[in-house]
Amino acid sequence: MSNQPDHSLSDGGLAERMARLIVHGRAPYNAEPPLDRLRASWRTAAADFYVRSHGDLPAIDAEAYRLEVGGAVGRKLSLSLTEIQAMPQATVTATLQCAGNRRADMRAVAPVSGDPWDAGAIGTADWTGPRLADVLAAAGFDRAHAQEDLHVAFACHDTVEGEAYRYGASIPMAKALAPETLLAHAMNGEPLLPEHGFPLRAVVPGYAGVRSPKWLASITVQDRPSDNPIQAGDYKFLPPQVDPDKVGPDDGITIETMPLNSAICEPARGASLPAGLTAVRGYAVCGDRTVARVDVSGDSGRTWAQASLEREAEAPFAWTFWSIDLDLPPGEHELAVRAWDAAGQTQPAAADDTWNRKGYLSTAWHRVRVTVG
Amino acid sequence: MSNQPDHSLSDGGLAERMARLIVHGRAPYNAEPPLDRLRASWRTAAADFYVRSHGDLPAIDAEAYRLEVGGAVGRKLSLSLTEIQAMPQATVTATLQCAGNRRADMRAVAPVSGDPWDAGAIGTADWTGPRLADVLAAAGFDRAHAQEDLHVAFACHDTVEGEAYRYGASIPMAKALAPETLLAHAMNGEPLLPEHGFPLRAVVPGYAGVRSPKWLASITVQDRPSDNPIQAGDYKFLPPQVDPDKVGPDDGITIETMPLNSAICEPARGASLPAGLTAVRGYAVCGDRTVARVDVSGDSGRTWAQASLEREAEAPFAWTFWSIDLDLPPGEHELAVRAWDAAGQTQPAAADDTWNRKGYLSTAWHRVRVTVG
Repeated sequence: MSNQPDHSLSDGGLAERMARLIVHGRAPYNAEPPLDRLRASWRTAAADFYVRSHGDLPAIDAEAYRLEVGGAVGRKLSLSLTEIQAMPQATVTATLQCAGNRRADMRAVAPVSGDPWDAGAIGTADWTGPRLADVLAAAGFDRAHAQEDLHVAFACHDTVEGEAYRYGASIPMAKALAPETLLAHAMNGEPLLPEHGFPLRAVVPGYAGVRSPKWLASITVQDRPSDNPIQAGDYKFLPPQVDPDKVGPDDGITIETMPLNSAICEPARGASLPAGLTAVRGYAVCGDRTVARVDVSGDSGRTWAQASLEREAEAPFAWTFWSIDLDLPPGEHELAVRAWDAAGQTQPAAADDTWNRKGYLSTAWHRVRVTVG
Repeated sequence: MSNQPDHSLSDGGLAERMARLIVHGRAPYNAEPPLDRLRASWRTAAADFYVRSHGDLPAIDAEAYRLEVGGAVGRKLSLSLTEIQAMPQATVTATLQCAGNRRADMRAVAPVSGDPWDAGAIGTADWTGPRLADVLAAAGFDRAHAQEDLHVAFACHDTVEGEAYRYGASIPMAKALAPETLLAHAMNGEPLLPEHGFPLRAVVPGYAGVRSPKWLASITVQDRPSDNPIQAGDYKFLPPQVDPDKVGPDDGITIETMPLNSAICEPARGASLPAGLTAVRGYAVCGDRTVARVDVSGDSGRTWAQASLEREAEAPFAWTFWSIDLDLPPGEHELAVRAWDAAGQTQPAAADDTWNRKGYLSTAWHRVRVTVG
């Protein structure tokens, strides 16, 4: 197994795929699709799926690949890709998104660190592989007699901040055993692309993408969350007054289940539109709850109308597409969208109310200015 | 078994308890405690616990009482109170609240129907009785082989709207089987008071109080949600433009898991306070998620400080108490509170954004004007 980031960046059509995306950085490679293309298909093509990396893109030899399973299990395993593919397979349709999705909207309030993601750091795919619960069972993990408060930690092949450390993260055992949580080797029926974690990644639906590590090297059952700097330090939702460089271990919320959010994908910001009905379309998403209602405004939120919703009943961890035709008079308009979840929670109106220095969990009403006429 | 509402209203100290509360109506009897008394104790005394009734208060003879268990179970049961108390018992500390809690705050936007609840239609208690899952198992319900999408319907002894119909509601089977869901005969270690459902009520933590019926008569396993008008018609969270008298079956969200909310209990609205530090205290609550952070503002939400949180780790379905000392200069101030849940969702700022004609799920920032000075 070797890490060949320079090679992989020009390998297997990656350059062509990069050209399709809005690239925020090449090393680490971070990119998102244009919003109209994102909204064009309820399942996102692998080539249009956002990429969030923290280091190199490891080039892994599938023949030599092994997944190590250890920690508080009955017996350690070292599984080849063929063995993983020979286990009972599940396919889960799930949305993954970056905790920094829509970060760009926070910059109007004050500067934020990190890549300026628009609303495209999100995508939905069919993920196929063994359920993590089955992998743990194969390693002799006995869920009926396990102690409480266990965690499953992932260690990965990608190196972060140069060669400072390998990427890692963990999830609570209850989520690890949930039927939606997989170790995926395929995305939309095809082997993972290098930038999406070939040959194996975790898929933890409903959680921030940071908890679905790519280029998986090992999984370990342990009695504490991951102490990897990615999880223990970086991905914290902090109050606005907290300096990210002076974060104590108890400061902020460790980002895990993703909050309710929604975005307008069409029309684009700044669009000039002909008179007549305007088709407004986008997505809404909520980590572990159903999106129950989406409201769209043609007048900055003074009045609202309900959008039509489109989703798949068998995919509770996937996004909801919404659409509505608005009859906008000639002139400038600020469109806005807000969603409601099944518990009756909605999004805050103002980016001021969600702003934090790292620009995480940007969930205020999404607003798009257009000119009709 | 007899229904004797007039008798029960003067029975067993009820009149004395009514005198302690803010009474919104005597028939049906609806009342809430003053907020400072609510905040004085993390567990709410039964005599201070809000009462929401939809009809009479049935006076039930405990000796003659039977709970009927039927529908899609292995065998019908008819259980005496003694038999119910002889089953394995659980105690769950949980908050219950009315879907109309804080409705009064919506009246500033536009008129709403229903009792004008302040923020006191909520309380927390220790509830004791058999888990509903154990009662179903005793009736031969086989969770491992049951069809999906089953519901447990509750029918009750209280009559609604005169004698029009008996109160009823249902919960999905997954919630019925959850360890937190009980049939409770005791509250804070004492038999239920008549107004809290003597001799037996459902306790469905995290859901709106409407799904924890009192004066339970029967439970039925069935393949559809309750068609009782209480659930099928009344308790709907509707978009503002929908007329509650013209609601179609697909309009609105059937209220179930309660959303994130918070309230300032002290100081009281309109209080005149001495100069110096002001102790601001209240509660925050979220149906099935942890309250992760509470922000308090002394200046209508322009700036915020984080409150200290107080809760019990063993009670995930109970509220969080919060407190902070604010240094307010002389003058008039609008205090505000907002909470954040573990997924990073927060409350909307303006009551306009949550207003609906029935005044349900009033979750905007709670605001209290005071004068320091």
